[in-house]
Amino acid sequence: MGRTINGVGKYEDPLTHLPHKSVQEFARGQMIYSPANPSTSLYLVILGRVKVSTAERDGSDTVARIVCKEGLFGESALIGAGEHTETAVALDNVTLMGWTRHEIETQIERDPRLGVALSQYLVRECLQLQDRMESMVVHRTPERVMLALIQLASNGTLVADGATRVASLTHQTIAEYVGTSREIVTFQLNRLRKLGMIKYSRKYMDIDVQRLRDALHTPLASPQHVQRMAG
Amino acid sequence: MGRTINGVGKYEDPLTHLPHKSVQEFARGQMIYSPANPSTSLYLVILGRVKVSTAERDGSDTVARIVCKEGLFGESALIGAGEHTETAVALDNVTLMGWTRHEIETQIERDPRLGVALSQYLVRECLQLQDRMESMVVHRTPERVMLALIQLASNGTLVADGATRVASLTHQTIAEYVGTSREIVTFQLNRLRKLGMIKYSRKYMDIDVQRLRDALHTPLASPQHVQRMAG
Repeated sequence: MGRTINGVGKYEDPLTHLPHKSVQEFARGQMIYSPANPSTSLYLVILGRVKVSTAERDGSDTVARIVCKEGLFGESALIGAGEHTETAVALDNVTLMGWTRHEIETQIERDPRLGVALSQYLVRECLQLQDRMESMVVHRTPERVMLALIQLASNGTLVADGATRVASLTHQTIAEYVGTSREIVTFQLNRLRKLGMIKYSRKYMDIDVQRLRDALHTPLASPQHVQRMAG
Repeated sequence: MGRTINGVGKYEDPLTHLPHKSVQEFARGQMIYSPANPSTSLYLVILGRVKVSTAERDGSDTVARIVCKEGLFGESALIGAGEHTETAVALDNVTLMGWTRHEIETQIERDPRLGVALSQYLVRECLQLQDRMESMVVHRTPERVMLALIQLASNGTLVADGATRVASLTHQTIAEYVGTSREIVTFQLNRLRKLGMIKYSRKYMDIDVQRLRDALHTPLASPQHVQRMAG
């Protein structure tokens, strides 16, 4: 019924309180919703990864969120927000379940623990957003790319040499996640690859989380290790 | 029972579902909670403003949120988060009501609409954080100071000449809200004051929201109007 974070707090899992629905499948690269075709559902990722980004007026994507297995997205369906600027795209072949605002509200009336679980889930999401926002202010781009890799690794699987393997993401998607340009991400990933902190192929990326963490905790300013690049 | 945002969505108001509690008062400048003395309550602001910021390891505040009348803060009490890094300080003499995680959960069991309302409140908070994060990536610091003033004005009162009056905030607090340095905020506020977009005294700031909006929608890049400053 509950999970433990950091070995301290215990929280309800919305998944155990959401009624079963038939699944929806989207092929890799397929649009799930967009400003022109907005979502009316809160979605749960059953399989695969989804990129949720906010389109700017000029049509360019900006800061993206990557939603993995058991993650929820499309929360704005719960408030019927007037302006739809979000776009969700399948990064892999994905399987989803979706509930309308009405279905969620009815289910909370029936099972109030869903209300508790959903609130707790959203609090965690707010804290993560706050962390990312803070990271943008406090850290320079090279550090932010490293932090992004550590965050992305939290949904990977351990492989033999102590690294964490995640299915590959384009440099463009990582750039949107970090909030920087594709060019800077390519430059930084190359640097980290040469330092042996990551390995990547077309199919996956192996991330040495421990080495990245160690590097972040040793002074990064040292110019022979990190080149300062403006985001 | 509900409010309308943007004239479109209708949402439940958590305030109508939270049980009445005796109020707590904090004097201007007083600490409400800190990492050393963490909060165990979700708070509602009855009167005054509260600054909620995340302390960095080096003790410096970084990105702050300003919570006004009818706003909630201390949400992390709902998940009993392990790491406490948040600090809340009274910006004015404030009156608060607070509920423990247990009280909130019990109340949701009793009145499931509180679960709906709280989820909707938190979705709006997530969207606001996403907006602010995006603004950090998309906009340069002068624009971000202007956007911050427009956001801060949303809790002000209209005064005679069409401006919106808000109780004064220190340049340091505005800097933490924007995610930049105090020096840059002072420079930018001075610039906006000379342009007649804001007026300020020790007690309040009058913000001409319409002129700020107009200025943001006309090309800002023109170098004689805005000096590019790295955040």
